[in-house]
Amino acid sequence: MKFRSRFLEIDPGRPIVFINEEDAKRIKCRPTDLIKLEVGTKTVYGEVAIDNINIKPGEIGLTGEFLRANISQGEPVNVLPAGTPESVRYIKKKMRGEKLKKVEIEAIVKDIVDRKLREVEISAFVTALEVHDLDMDEVASLTVAMAETGDMLDIDRKPIMDVHSIGGVPGNKTNMIVVPIVAAAGLTIPKTSSRAITSAAGTADVMEVLAGVSFSLDEIKRIVEKVGGCLVWGGALNLAPADDLTIHVERALSVDPKGLMLASIMSKKYAMGAQYVTIDIPTGKGVKVEGMEQARSLAKDFIELGKRLGQYVEVAITYGGQPVGHSVGPALEARELMETLIHGKGPGSLVEKATGLAGIILEMGGIAPAGMGKRMAKEILESGKAYEKMREIIEAQGGDPNIKPEDIPIGDKTYTFTAATSGYITGIHNKAITEIARQAGAPEDKGAGIKLYVKVGEKIKEGNPLFTIHAESEARLEQAIVTARRSDPIKIEGMVLQRIGNL
Amino acid sequence: MKFRSRFLEIDPGRPIVFINEEDAKRIKCRPTDLIKLEVGTKTVYGEVAIDNINIKPGEIGLTGEFLRANISQGEPVNVLPAGTPESVRYIKKKMRGEKLKKVEIEAIVKDIVDRKLREVEISAFVTALEVHDLDMDEVASLTVAMAETGDMLDIDRKPIMDVHSIGGVPGNKTNMIVVPIVAAAGLTIPKTSSRAITSAAGTADVMEVLAGVSFSLDEIKRIVEKVGGCLVWGGALNLAPADDLTIHVERALSVDPKGLMLASIMSKKYAMGAQYVTIDIPTGKGVKVEGMEQARSLAKDFIELGKRLGQYVEVAITYGGQPVGHSVGPALEARELMETLIHGKGPGSLVEKATGLAGIILEMGGIAPAGMGKRMAKEILESGKAYEKMREIIEAQGGDPNIKPEDIPIGDKTYTFTAATSGYITGIHNKAITEIARQAGAPEDKGAGIKLYVKVGEKIKEGNPLFTIHAESEARLEQAIVTARRSDPIKIEGMVLQRIGNL
Repeated sequence: MKFRSRFLEIDPGRPIVFINEEDAKRIKCRPTDLIKLEVGTKTVYGEVAIDNINIKPGEIGLTGEFLRANISQGEPVNVLPAGTPESVRYIKKKMRGEKLKKVEIEAIVKDIVDRKLREVEISAFVTALEVHDLDMDEVASLTVAMAETGDMLDIDRKPIMDVHSIGGVPGNKTNMIVVPIVAAAGLTIPKTSSRAITSAAGTADVMEVLAGVSFSLDEIKRIVEKVGGCLVWGGALNLAPADDLTIHVERALSVDPKGLMLASIMSKKYAMGAQYVTIDIPTGKGVKVEGMEQARSLAKDFIELGKRLGQYVEVAITYGGQPVGHSVGPALEARELMETLIHGKGPGSLVEKATGLAGIILEMGGIAPAGMGKRMAKEILESGKAYEKMREIIEAQGGDPNIKPEDIPIGDKTYTFTAATSGYITGIHNKAITEIARQAGAPEDKGAGIKLYVKVGEKIKEGNPLFTIHAESEARLEQAIVTARRSDPIKIEGMVLQRIGNL
Repeated sequence: MKFRSRFLEIDPGRPIVFINEEDAKRIKCRPTDLIKLEVGTKTVYGEVAIDNINIKPGEIGLTGEFLRANISQGEPVNVLPAGTPESVRYIKKKMRGEKLKKVEIEAIVKDIVDRKLREVEISAFVTALEVHDLDMDEVASLTVAMAETGDMLDIDRKPIMDVHSIGGVPGNKTNMIVVPIVAAAGLTIPKTSSRAITSAAGTADVMEVLAGVSFSLDEIKRIVEKVGGCLVWGGALNLAPADDLTIHVERALSVDPKGLMLASIMSKKYAMGAQYVTIDIPTGKGVKVEGMEQARSLAKDFIELGKRLGQYVEVAITYGGQPVGHSVGPALEARELMETLIHGKGPGSLVEKATGLAGIILEMGGIAPAGMGKRMAKEILESGKAYEKMREIIEAQGGDPNIKPEDIPIGDKTYTFTAATSGYITGIHNKAITEIARQAGAPEDKGAGIKLYVKVGEKIKEGNPLFTIHAESEARLEQAIVTARRSDPIKIEGMVLQRIGNL
């Protein structure tokens, strides 16, 4: 049956086709049914919703998601029932614990991207993977299928380097120092990042304080071919689009099957054309990977997967037991990293980690002799060349290259916690720090966050400041203070850890 | 934040809360997020959709599903973010293959009914059950939890009998003869049925040709207390409401975990107060349960589950290899069963099956001595007492008790297929028969369906009629004819099944 299409300013988070009750009866479709829309030579899929207020008989209403398929307002659309996609059979095969063939994985990924698989089926797929997971053949097929069903970048400057940190450590602005060091050394590093989802600041949120982060692939190509590197947001690009949909489900179920995690990360590197990839696995309490054994096993998986993709992968297992540097939150982190770049030095945890990771990349890229990468990275940082490169990147991304750290606005509603007792700092609770910064308004309020005055192992006296909360409003500050009081994020203990009485 | 509620005539098949973009930003919720609505003393849950065309700031739009929660138009609603429900942890426990405790199953079922679990989580639950399934303790907990989170019937006429057929056999109007026989014998049998989903006619669709089928539980109580039985639609009742939501997911994934299937059937019997339950498991090609071994194992499960629920269960494994009787489709089946009741006799397959099942129930209910149930059932049918009781039931359900079979309108657009060769009928393909009847318009077009002239084993001559398709429109008739030509539903073979040439 032919319909006149109309876009509705309704966003239900999935591609929904609104149809009048009369027409729905006529074509025998019910709410949540999958239907097929033929528009010219294009075919797209959506879920049915009955709508008698916005939609008259003969019309269908489309959500914004269909704009991506280049359908225009008023275009005639042929609506047909869509049967169960073939790929549901492969999802059921995985439920039974069987190994999937390359073509079967490709069919699942293609149907996810085409929206032939709805959330109900994607959830079954994710659950089946959580139960049975994938072997390395399957992960490699999944990674390539995810990359190839999206856009891919082809930069005319080889070799292409990339770096990725598995999340979880607050204040991890490290890669914003790694990228300018690597680019200053003459290598190409088109770095895409995400925004914070559960953290207080993603790399894209921090970079956005200094410059634009939303660019098309063509613009990214031009930026990187000019200055050798970028720090952009990957979310607006159509990189491995199946990943967004599976991640949405993983988050709802709070599961994270290893095979999906590997494919999620590596499909984006693959799509960006990366040939040499450094993976940073922070390890410690309160981050994604808590134990060394788990970190080593994951490292092997990344390296093995890289081999199958034709990428050379090295992994750095880093210390993630406390925040990196002294700041958490977009603007506070932007200040700290710019100070570090300008002065060529900064907090030990930040400089050591950034130069360590950059050093690996310099060696991989053949710029530094084996074992000399870190020293060279440090020289590039200390010489001001990294800062010069960062200015170029900021300018290429439409920011002000002359920005001074002290000009970056931070939240002026503040509250400082002090030590209730003298002793040694024995722990800083990552998750609590993140939660306080988020309660203060990060990452949406760019100026919100935490400034830390202490790190684990330091000696402290009663009454000394521990950390300051920054917020943009009193209400947010209050919330963060309440959270901080409850969660007690910094542990202080005397040297005598336990005193046993006279029994 | 407080909002003014408004009902929107939009049915997306799930409880959705439409909210203006501005407000969504303010309360930090995104499309598909779960949110909690407090209305007076009531708390309900829904998924967020952004809507800038129907909804102004300060308003929220609600779908019809919220009417059930007794929210009224314009009522002030407090909207809060809803965290991840605790029961997601139990779903993940089942993903790991662990046994769930009674309280954990209760939490999952309660959260399904309260709509705190969305489709994405229900799909994970169903998938986890498809992979690991439930043991009998878990099935019993699930059954009771499903019944007790819905409405329950308490009829003042004990004992309460019930009968249920596992689906799949076309033309299975059997229980519409069983119920009047059992009620005529003085037993109480409050039978609820479903409408067709994938079949050509559910019992409720057939009964609707003769009388009303949509009643409240109070009305059903009055009908049954008066005439001893009923034949009503269970779908409008709030019986085991979690079941509708899990079935919706099972259908999308085309999975049917055994534990869920048992709980789905038995929770409704439990909610109707049934003490003695007869389960009919048709077995044969093209029905749900194809092999005898599978049927026996399922029978044991039903009996064991009944014990745990305090119900006495008997199972009849019946022949389901071809349609029951000679008609398929609501009106054609209504004609056939009324003829059978009026004359006290009818097609062998129908009468044998109906009196066999009724006989078991008469013995269970202590009306017939052991081994004598079937004979007594046959006497009740032949004597006209079953017909008399059916008239009472039809009248109590608002139909015309004097209706004559020949007055029931059937589709007048017909086409008859004849035998292309002489031979023996060696097979009638259940699924093909169902598909042809559905293409002809059944179950929505009550008069659509198939009249069969042959059954398996019969001898036939070339040119003899095999079956007639009835439809209410030429277009539908055409569709059904095309389907019939393609699917070739009736197999005729000579006695020589294979002739091997002179090699």
